[in-house]
Amino acid sequence: MQRLKCIISYDGTHFSGYQIQPNGRTVQEEIETVLEKIHKGKHIRIVASGRTDAGVHAKGQVIHFDSNIAMPEANWKKAINALLPKDVQVKKAEKVSDDFHSRYDVKEKEYRYFVLNTEDRDVFQRHFSWQHAGNIDVGAIQSACKLLEGKHDFSSFCSAKTDLKGDKIRTIYEASCYKKEDMLVFCFKGNGFLYNMVRILVGTLLEIGKGKRSARDIPGIIRAENRGEAGETAPPQGLFLWNVDY
Amino acid sequence: MQRLKCIISYDGTHFSGYQIQPNGRTVQEEIETVLEKIHKGKHIRIVASGRTDAGVHAKGQVIHFDSNIAMPEANWKKAINALLPKDVQVKKAEKVSDDFHSRYDVKEKEYRYFVLNTEDRDVFQRHFSWQHAGNIDVGAIQSACKLLEGKHDFSSFCSAKTDLKGDKIRTIYEASCYKKEDMLVFCFKGNGFLYNMVRILVGTLLEIGKGKRSARDIPGIIRAENRGEAGETAPPQGLFLWNVDY
Repeated sequence: MQRLKCIISYDGTHFSGYQIQPNGRTVQEEIETVLEKIHKGKHIRIVASGRTDAGVHAKGQVIHFDSNIAMPEANWKKAINALLPKDVQVKKAEKVSDDFHSRYDVKEKEYRYFVLNTEDRDVFQRHFSWQHAGNIDVGAIQSACKLLEGKHDFSSFCSAKTDLKGDKIRTIYEASCYKKEDMLVFCFKGNGFLYNMVRILVGTLLEIGKGKRSARDIPGIIRAENRGEAGETAPPQGLFLWNVDY
Repeated sequence: MQRLKCIISYDGTHFSGYQIQPNGRTVQEEIETVLEKIHKGKHIRIVASGRTDAGVHAKGQVIHFDSNIAMPEANWKKAINALLPKDVQVKKAEKVSDDFHSRYDVKEKEYRYFVLNTEDRDVFQRHFSWQHAGNIDVGAIQSACKLLEGKHDFSSFCSAKTDLKGDKIRTIYEASCYKKEDMLVFCFKGNGFLYNMVRILVGTLLEIGKGKRSARDIPGIIRAENRGEAGETAPPQGLFLWNVDY
């Protein structure tokens, strides 16, 4: 038995999210179906670093699984990619020790969120960004980002739909935003993120960028530990799980 | 009666091309359906600068149509976009003189073609580029591009499926190629292009970039006036109708 770790990428547009569910196409099911074929009908369960919602993309999701097939490490990526549909792919596959765990061993996760700041929608960006017309004050967003960094109880930035049992204290190592041509790029690195946390952070930061709130409101929103104090939840299609470090 | 000129953009992924056909969703039909609604059930025919094939995109296709609705110029774009599906949009709408013709008056067309030069496919680029692994000699492609410029009989670069009645002499004002990160960007400007011409040009230039042919072969391929002498037809998803000048 050998444990494999894979870095995978997917276009979330036509998926009902990462995790298997009764109805709807999922990333987990597509990959497990391929692994079942490779293992001659034996079901192989995969474990990911975490779920992503319907419409959310991944550049660097990480999964692991165990296999009893004696395949050279270099062949795994090609074997899986040959059978996967075109909107999901393995970018890297490597053998790891039996105690590696893609969820429990996460040290840092990075998410990016893309906001297209143009007057009109763009047919080519519609699945990969959130379009916003009007002036956005990037400097104000950057000031707010600094106030989000650090160890906080992020209850105000967690969807009420969470099924989390533990606390909502997380550490954001980096929250940043820059503009490249018409695109605002948000970057969040942390030791973990709550349900919808990045999308609520972006929704709140956008309100600051549009002058509806001030960057100075951030500490109070955090302290409130109340979802109602933060801004709206940004839509899924602008969000990318960018990287997971162990 | 007023003639309107519109610059339109579309993601060609889910279209069976621009032109209306018995089966399959087309850009022309989507726009005419919207105009019919705006004109209370009266059918409005639109005329484009030219067709694009299934899977081919447009950043700056141009159409015209005639309307008896007295709408201010500034409202047309919003009125049409409000009813269009999300993969096609009007970028600009303006009133023009009655003798403007989007096809007959074209002075210059620009097409771009994107080749992703990476070892692996990329789920996010799969509908918008042609992925090619291995080394590509951009300098050799640039040399070949220079030899394509000018007024030539481009029969060797025209699909046998063309229904063209006239001659195949066209003028290429600019043929160029540059690499930006992993993406090769081909740019072609000319007074007109034959059926599949840009895709056959790219297919041939790629063979030169990969060392299967020499840039010096271009004059001979042109002189042959024989489709069999040129390279393969590049796939549609890398092609964008970029701009039309009048």
